[in-house]
Amino acid sequence: MEQDFTELVTRLVFQLAIILVAAKLGGEVCERYLKVPPVLGELVAGIIIGPFALGGLSFLGLESLFEKASKAVEASGGIPVSLELFSLSQIAAVVLLFAAGLETNLKQFLRYAGPASLVAVGGVALPFAFGMGATLLFKPGGLSGDALLYSALFMGAVMSATSVGITARVLSEKHKLDTPEGVTILAAAVIDDVLGILVLTVVVGMATPGEQVSASGVALIGGKALGFWLALVGGGILVSRYISRVVGSFRVSGARVALALAIAFLCAALAESFGLAMIIGAYSIGLALSGTPLARQLEEPITAVYHALVPIFFVVMGMMVDVTAMGGVVFFGTVITALAVVSKVVGCGIPALATGFNRIGAWRIGIGMLPRGEVALIVAGIGLSRGVIETDLFGVSIMMTIATTLIAPIIMVSAFGKGGAGRRGHPSPEGGAVDVAR
Amino acid sequence: MEQDFTELVTRLVFQLAIILVAAKLGGEVCERYLKVPPVLGELVAGIIIGPFALGGLSFLGLESLFEKASKAVEASGGIPVSLELFSLSQIAAVVLLFAAGLETNLKQFLRYAGPASLVAVGGVALPFAFGMGATLLFKPGGLSGDALLYSALFMGAVMSATSVGITARVLSEKHKLDTPEGVTILAAAVIDDVLGILVLTVVVGMATPGEQVSASGVALIGGKALGFWLALVGGGILVSRYISRVVGSFRVSGARVALALAIAFLCAALAESFGLAMIIGAYSIGLALSGTPLARQLEEPITAVYHALVPIFFVVMGMMVDVTAMGGVVFFGTVITALAVVSKVVGCGIPALATGFNRIGAWRIGIGMLPRGEVALIVAGIGLSRGVIETDLFGVSIMMTIATTLIAPIIMVSAFGKGGAGRRGHPSPEGGAVDVAR
Repeated sequence: MEQDFTELVTRLVFQLAIILVAAKLGGEVCERYLKVPPVLGELVAGIIIGPFALGGLSFLGLESLFEKASKAVEASGGIPVSLELFSLSQIAAVVLLFAAGLETNLKQFLRYAGPASLVAVGGVALPFAFGMGATLLFKPGGLSGDALLYSALFMGAVMSATSVGITARVLSEKHKLDTPEGVTILAAAVIDDVLGILVLTVVVGMATPGEQVSASGVALIGGKALGFWLALVGGGILVSRYISRVVGSFRVSGARVALALAIAFLCAALAESFGLAMIIGAYSIGLALSGTPLARQLEEPITAVYHALVPIFFVVMGMMVDVTAMGGVVFFGTVITALAVVSKVVGCGIPALATGFNRIGAWRIGIGMLPRGEVALIVAGIGLSRGVIETDLFGVSIMMTIATTLIAPIIMVSAFGKGGAGRRGHPSPEGGAVDVAR
Repeated sequence: MEQDFTELVTRLVFQLAIILVAAKLGGEVCERYLKVPPVLGELVAGIIIGPFALGGLSFLGLESLFEKASKAVEASGGIPVSLELFSLSQIAAVVLLFAAGLETNLKQFLRYAGPASLVAVGGVALPFAFGMGATLLFKPGGLSGDALLYSALFMGAVMSATSVGITARVLSEKHKLDTPEGVTILAAAVIDDVLGILVLTVVVGMATPGEQVSASGVALIGGKALGFWLALVGGGILVSRYISRVVGSFRVSGARVALALAIAFLCAALAESFGLAMIIGAYSIGLALSGTPLARQLEEPITAVYHALVPIFFVVMGMMVDVTAMGGVVFFGTVITALAVVSKVVGCGIPALATGFNRIGAWRIGIGMLPRGEVALIVAGIGLSRGVIETDLFGVSIMMTIATTLIAPIIMVSAFGKGGAGRRGHPSPEGGAVDVAR
């Protein structure tokens, strides 16, 4: 029986080897020949080696590398990889966002918290309305009655998702994390996460027979999540110097990186238990610690851990994509994809314009909020596993997710690469507009 | 249903936070106050927070941190932690031994391959004989007949185990990995692993009703393992410069550490599929790559990944220890522990003396081979799950494992700390004896 554990671990280690090689090959092709962000190559590498493509086939009588394991997929709400691999990818995402937090300029972040809130609200409301409206209008699959309504609500929820991982990585590689646009995007992603949970709670509640959705219940969930987040960042900032000193006082080797990761993991788990995503907790404590001596000492070791783990996150994200599921829904899928792009860029761009950004800045923010990534896949997976949406709308969600996730990093590079201030008016003495041009 | 996966991952991330903090607190106490190797503190921290001690209790109505999950334990052959956590600890062990391989001096290793073979044979044969003999003599638990014979064979197998992780870490921290003693210990551990598999194959085969153990079958298993290992190291050395060049030619960021880890994971998985332990594969490819430009470039990033992961391995190793299982077997446990120490030190020391080491060197090698670690726990777990040994002898195995695993690093520090050449005669021009004093 002991064999079972050892065999499973051996399989995982072999999968990791393939994943890391595929990630770096894909990244290298993008960097060297296609001149697009390497993260794209990692995502596509994941699609190619994933359980729905090459990884699902068995060669020469060998077992397939990543079996679809349909039972496991159902049990896990549409996640087609093993729990061990999924766990590792989530740990990688925590490291990614913790590193992004450490790199962010806290003062900048706080300065743009106001604009970010408006950007987040616009970036959820408009895509939700468009997704719901389009579904009601086109009645895909001949839906009608309650089934149509619930499907429409779910498509709205899927459309309103934001995945900040890809944006954080591109901003980090281009050293734009602490520009006004960079901090606005990341702050908006935090608030977006809170709003996303509320939307999902309401939609799932409405679509579940016999379940009541009360306004006070929704307010409680939102209040709990937002209250925790404010306490985490506020408390984190207050004790950040103290944490930095205590961690720095350890003499045993490797204490800094191990304890910093422990803090990130702890805050990630706490965030999840308060209804937020783990990565929001990790980003927030990284943000609170940014600017401390510890953050500077962590730069090199955390980068090494990042390089070892983060490709696993993006490849696994690609592995979740079932390209074949998009077959019969190309028309509605194209409509939804176009609406997803327009509604996010406009929904985020207009509040940005209204809060002091110019058109360059608003465009950057809109594009940065575009990728739906694993968040939309997970929401769509919940819909599928609860029977609210069928495989055709799941396919549409995947098509929209792939398109927005692959388009965003390419446009981001050109949007941020051109230079030019993203804020209206001349470079202010506070440095708001200057930072962009660094 | 999706909740399940997310909940499990959140739990894992929370556990990792506690594990890393406990590891560094334990390590700090050892380093600063007790003046013993930090790895001891990590092991003891694991015992304390593990499922058999604090981690198994539930406080304030909260769930226990590490549930014993008796069903899972049985299904996994005595491994009392979740598959996700066990997987991570095994990945950490692969990184540990890969780093040890990179640090080893390949020429030194090859020079001491001969002595190491004899050390390995002595270090398996004598403990096996002592473990079997003592069990037959003392008849613990009133065993008799076949049950006594099979129990005795199993105790022999448990006693002959060697866990090279602790030794590799202490040698690495003290910069003694490429001394004659250091390379002899690690080379012996490789051969020991091959021998250990053979012993276990024979013992399990004999104890399983209806199964036949043929000499040719055992020879085939041993030949396959040894043949693979020779091919891995030989082939690895031949292509190491080429690997170094190819990996170095990648332009995308983080390619070096990701691809190096991929190679380590691949060799680890291959080793396991050829009947060797994963860590042997990782060590061997690290050894083959040592001395290449890649190995030098990897030094810093691999150290950072090491610091992030390796404490998880040692804490999880501690978590596997059920202290309460040692209750009723203190006398026989003490006998077996004493014999385990004597037989390993003598069994490895005499071949060392016979192959050019002096008494200092032989003592260092004997102590370095002493820890049984997770290898003995796994062998004992196989015995328990197959019903060959009962919980009393399992308890004895654990007591012996704890004692040898905790004693070894303490003695190693003093044995290697004093300085003095470990080889007979004056420092030779080839540098054999000089290296020790570095």
